Amino acid sequence: MGSTWGNKFKVSIFGESHGHGIGAVIDGLPSGITIDLERVQHELNRRAARGNPLATPRKEGDQIEILSGIFNGKTTGAPLAGLICNENTRSGDYAKTKDLMRPGHADYAANARYDGFQDYRGGGHFSGRLTAPLVFAGAIAKEILRETQPEIGIGSRIVSIANVKDEPIKDWKRYETLSKGFENPAFPLYHANLEDPMKQAIIAAMEDDDSVGGIVEGFITGVKPGIGNPFFESIESRLSALLFSIPAVKGVTFGAGFDMAEHRGSETNDALRIENGQIETLTNNNGGINGGISNGMPIVFQLAFKPTPSIGKEQQTINLAEMKDATLKIEGRHDPCIVVRAFPVVEAVTAICMADFLL
Amino acid sequence: MGSTWGNKFKVSIFGESHGHGIGAVIDGLPSGITIDLERVQHELNRRAARGNPLATPRKEGDQIEILSGIFNGKTTGAPLAGLICNENTRSGDYAKTKDLMRPGHADYAANARYDGFQDYRGGGHFSGRLTAPLVFAGAIAKEILRETQPEIGIGSRIVSIANVKDEPIKDWKRYETLSKGFENPAFPLYHANLEDPMKQAIIAAMEDDDSVGGIVEGFITGVKPGIGNPFFESIESRLSALLFSIPAVKGVTFGAGFDMAEHRGSETNDALRIENGQIETLTNNNGGINGGISNGMPIVFQLAFKPTPSIGKEQQTINLAEMKDATLKIEGRHDPCIVVRAFPVVEAVTAICMADFLL
Amino acid sequence: MGSTWGNKFKVSIFGESHGHGIGAVIDGLPSGITIDLERVQHELNRRAARGNPLATPRKEGDQIEILSGIFNGKTTGAPLAGLICNENTRSGDYAKTKDLMRPGHADYAANARYDGFQDYRGGGHFSGRLTAPLVFAGAIAKEILRETQPEIGIGSRIVSIANVKDEPIKDWKRYETLSKGFENPAFPLYHANLEDPMKQAIIAAMEDDDSVGGIVEGFITGVKPGIGNPFFESIESRLSALLFSIPAVKGVTFGAGFDMAEHRGSETNDALRIENGQIETLTNNNGGINGGISNGMPIVFQLAFKPTPSIGKEQQTINLAEMKDATLKIEGRHDPCIVVRAFPVVEAVTAICMADFLL
Amino acid sequence: MGSTWGNKFKVSIFGESHGHGIGAVIDGLPSGITIDLERVQHELNRRAARGNPLATPRKEGDQIEILSGIFNGKTTGAPLAGLICNENTRSGDYAKTKDLMRPGHADYAANARYDGFQDYRGGGHFSGRLTAPLVFAGAIAKEILRETQPEIGIGSRIVSIANVKDEPIKDWKRYETLSKGFENPAFPLYHANLEDPMKQAIIAAMEDDDSVGGIVEGFITGVKPGIGNPFFESIESRLSALLFSIPAVKGVTFGAGFDMAEHRGSETNDALRIENGQIETLTNNNGGINGGISNGMPIVFQLAFKPTPSIGKEQQTINLAEMKDATLKIEGRHDPCIVVRAFPVVEAVTAICMADFLL
Repeated sequence: MGSTWGNKFKVSIFGESHGHGIGAVIDGLPSGITIDLERVQHELNRRAARGNPLATPRKEGDQIEILSGIFNGKTTGAPLAGLICNENTRSGDYAKTKDLMRPGHADYAANARYDGFQDYRGGGHFSGRLTAPLVFAGAIAKEILRETQPEIGIGSRIVSIANVKDEPIKDWKRYETLSKGFENPAFPLYHANLEDPMKQAIIAAMEDDDSVGGIVEGFITGVKPGIGNPFFESIESRLSALLFSIPAVKGVTFGAGFDMAEHRGSETNDALRIENGQIETLTNNNGGINGGISNGMPIVFQLAFKPTPSIGKEQQTINLAEMKDATLKIEGRHDPCIVVRAFPVVEAVTAICMADFLL
Repeated sequence: MGSTWGNKFKVSIFGESHGHGIGAVIDGLPSGITIDLERVQHELNRRAARGNPLATPRKEGDQIEILSGIFNGKTTGAPLAGLICNENTRSGDYAKTKDLMRPGHADYAANARYDGFQDYRGGGHFSGRLTAPLVFAGAIAKEILRETQPEIGIGSRIVSIANVKDEPIKDWKRYETLSKGFENPAFPLYHANLEDPMKQAIIAAMEDDDSVGGIVEGFITGVKPGIGNPFFESIESRLSALLFSIPAVKGVTFGAGFDMAEHRGSETNDALRIENGQIETLTNNNGGINGGISNGMPIVFQLAFKPTPSIGKEQQTINLAEMKDATLKIEGRHDPCIVVRAFPVVEAVTAICMADFLL
Repeated sequence: MGSTWGNKFKVSIFGESHGHGIGAVIDGLPSGITIDLERVQHELNRRAARGNPLATPRKEGDQIEILSGIFNGKTTGAPLAGLICNENTRSGDYAKTKDLMRPGHADYAANARYDGFQDYRGGGHFSGRLTAPLVFAGAIAKEILRETQPEIGIGSRIVSIANVKDEPIKDWKRYETLSKGFENPAFPLYHANLEDPMKQAIIAAMEDDDSVGGIVEGFITGVKPGIGNPFFESIESRLSALLFSIPAVKGVTFGAGFDMAEHRGSETNDALRIENGQIETLTNNNGGINGGISNGMPIVFQLAFKPTPSIGKEQQTINLAEMKDATLKIEGRHDPCIVVRAFPVVEAVTAICMADFLL
Repeated sequence: MGSTWGNKFKVSIFGESHGHGIGAVIDGLPSGITIDLERVQHELNRRAARGNPLATPRKEGDQIEILSGIFNGKTTGAPLAGLICNENTRSGDYAKTKDLMRPGHADYAANARYDGFQDYRGGGHFSGRLTAPLVFAGAIAKEILRETQPEIGIGSRIVSIANVKDEPIKDWKRYETLSKGFENPAFPLYHANLEDPMKQAIIAAMEDDDSVGGIVEGFITGVKPGIGNPFFESIESRLSALLFSIPAVKGVTFGAGFDMAEHRGSETNDALRIENGQIETLTNNNGGINGGISNGMPIVFQLAFKPTPSIGKEQQTINLAEMKDATLKIEGRHDPCIVVRAFPVVEAVTAICMADFLL
């Protein structure tokens, strides 16, 4: 369980890191929507972060193959299935460390959940690689939104890496501009000059056989007021469920988030006004959502990503088969900071969520 | 949409603040479980916070009436329905302010969502009063868990109110003790001496016709490793969806949350060890969850509550009918800090979530 | 489980024959739809069949009380909850026969399912009385359809009772007329002259302490082509799931049903033609559905109702508590033929199904 | 929508007749279940009916390729995905007849549903070929049941083809024997001597450029009492939804079905008795189900299959693009009777249904 989501835009993802392939099936699509497969592949390439020296050098092709649901370049209305074949991977390596539970990873929890039958190679179904099907589904969602809701913009930025932090964006009108793109799309920042210190923080951790976490902000512009629902199907509930399904996310906030808890109502209530015949709020502490429903302001949310648990440093752990303490040094090179590859995933699940609300 | 949740423990809530009644229907219950209606009513009374000088003085009876699903004191296995009749409320008051959108409330968003047909009296379906059906459903979930999973403990504490903050609990073994109860159950604190300054912060806001927010921590002890799922049905995804359905929640974190984003993997990975024949982690930065699945440590999460949007101060807003700017002073007395009534709601939805996972 | 249905028009029914009350919660309604509560009550009265000498003389008030979801006569968009309180019933009677499993009833299966904790009084949650919440939900669905899809007509007729059979309606254009109403709405027949022999068949069974079954046909006119889905969410799949949830239904067919199995494709394929600029089929053997999707012809289906299992004749059965053979004579008067009260229920679930497809 | 089903055993099917491939993703599987891929392939071969002179001679390889979810021969607990690549098919043929709506097929309804964007080649997603993913999912369900519920037997028989009819099986104990297998598994009959006349009926239709329908009976033995639910999740509701998702099914009955409608309660109530310490019913008119829940007797149901709509005879239809009447002769050879290939599909969806109930 756990790999199917959606009311109207239904996604099923499948795959394991070293199995035959990974992919997604999407049901509920309207027919006749043009799918530009180059744009879809581009989204997958953004996640793959090929050539990025700060990302894992594992060469992932991530070439998407459409199995069904597109005919003459347009959706047929039948389920759209996409497959990414896993390329040759050296799976034999994993057998010898399979009993050593990697701290911070799902190894031990998954062992308990699946009685040891899970595919342990490279994390199996828990691998960060499974974000590729999410990105594929999100890319399809973006195509749908592009054609049916062209006023909607979805974007993301890196807010912090380790202790290097960018500012909060108080003026919500800035998001309109940011939704058009960032100076460096491969490292989207509100203040572009932070790219260097952020990268330095990653390199410093990497050189120390360690990793760092960070914060990503996602945003959605152009959402009309009145989208969403109260309670269990609020925008926050639906979107947070998707955001927390991204590996390594440990916190999700909307609008001013935890900062609101420290302030008074008179400071955080977003006063309303009419400006050029349009209703708007002065501030956007509520992140575009009241009572689970959009209020017309940009929907803004932040995610805390923990440091990549795979580190080269020696760690204390257990050997599960022998039920005794052990130490572990994770070999090979891994992403020293998942944030630099995670923001396209954040955008993808955001697009999935909006497609589900808006179809 | 939005008022139905659950795979195995299915809850449907209904009601509006000034309608005939509010309640919940729960489907999927096992038969033969003893339901102690006094304990159920006690949970509702905790939420109602009767006699608490810091809570709204509106006298809410919140007397639950069981319509079906219990026979001879035990669940029948058929849907369990409970009703709380709304007592006489002066609804006429609301007509004159119905076009003034209360900042921070759902008024404007709901107007857009429901084309103005929503029951606007007292917030209608968006009223905090709808947390009573949640607490009712949670109380039933607690009864189920008590009988079928007695090792599980669910609790909550107030972490902060305004700027008065309690410490994080680093030693996860403390949660075992806390799950037995707090010194003052009506104001659960890790450091009981903070009760006074926290209350002072509330009173100060109240005297200023204002309100304050705060942070609540929820926790679950005694959960075996292996509960939960990857991706969309992870514990984080399922639980956050419920937590964000509590009105006024703007942030949810698990374990060390946003703090993890500032640290390195070597600091946040929870090393494993064997202690007295049991597998445990030294720290619990992951809040008891890896890959969406429990790892046997206490499940710990925090919620940011925004300040109550209903404040007596004059606020800038709009008159929606006349489409012009307006000012608004919300009359009557309202909860100056929702946190003091919200923690039983946090526990309730936590119990619902666990019942859904464990049935 | 089992008491919640729907994707867009979500219904949760609850209640037991001798509990406090029965009812339904409906989520997903559009706001602003006028609900005429007199028409709603009229549907419940049709089912209650008060004054019908062929129906059980148990006086069922079936007065619906709206708990939420309607404000100023229109839907608010929040869940619409309705309650029918069970009036004083002599429940004590049931204790002495509770171990005698009534043949043809759910008693024995329910005992196994709920370990004997089900409310056995009057069949509990399995009582035919639970069709009242279905009718209530269907009446709300009819109101929604009336306002949003006025071209749609939903009707039903009695096709047979015992061995007295009315003709199949070969000319599909007749359904347009029938959707306006029947000569005797309380006993809807294609050939009104069969009312007498059908009633005689019921009376004959009744006088013999026995019961009879029959066939009901439901139909939907005015459905545009293109409604429905392939496979699991076909009109047949969705509608049959609802039809089989009506107690006593043992068969469901669409169009010519089992008759098609005996014929050749050249006889059963519905040839298409253009008539007055409209596409239509000559025959309607497929009952208005191809590939799970409407083709614009009337949707026609039939249901087999088994004879009421409650009969006065002595029957062989078991005493479950004593695990020995026993005999049973069911006392009191029961419906000798459920068909005469079932057709409003058929219409109700049909309306629910269509509302779910069309919202 | 429409291609995803299940609460615990969740199936998503995808594919189009002439697309890249067809397949299914199954989520919710327990881990550690041995999957014998030869048996799985065997089920697919049964459906493909290779070498059967009465089936279409189109050579369908139907070779299943496992993409994920199996590791070392056992389920991992992660989604199990299977793909059948479509082999080279002459798709160009279809363009010239795409505007001629084939009577009895989904062509016209699908055109309306998908605004003409559906993949029309070979029926696209509506092709009988999509029963292969159903059979694949059913084969996995059978593997799960084999290991976890070995006492359960699932079988099917041909009851009639055209006017050649086999007898009803009144003695329910016979189903135990039949669940072990039939004399000719490729043509399962209660009375094996009917094979010849049934085949003659098919050949006669074929020689006449026509097709015939028939009836299939499915059965499940070894189901303990107490499986299932009342109302919307009754065995009848769940199973009929799946059975009606098989192309060409126009009727589904349980137990004595429509025959019950003609009889009296005293004839159709299944009297209970204790026999060798076991509770059983004398007759099984209710087909093993009361109140939607199993009663321990064999679950028995029948399906009406309409004649294959693809026939060589000239048919009256329309040209949709030109909006005028037309005639159509369907070329190529097609299954003259779908029944001879449909019974493995009936078993497959039955296994899916039982796995969903029993996991």
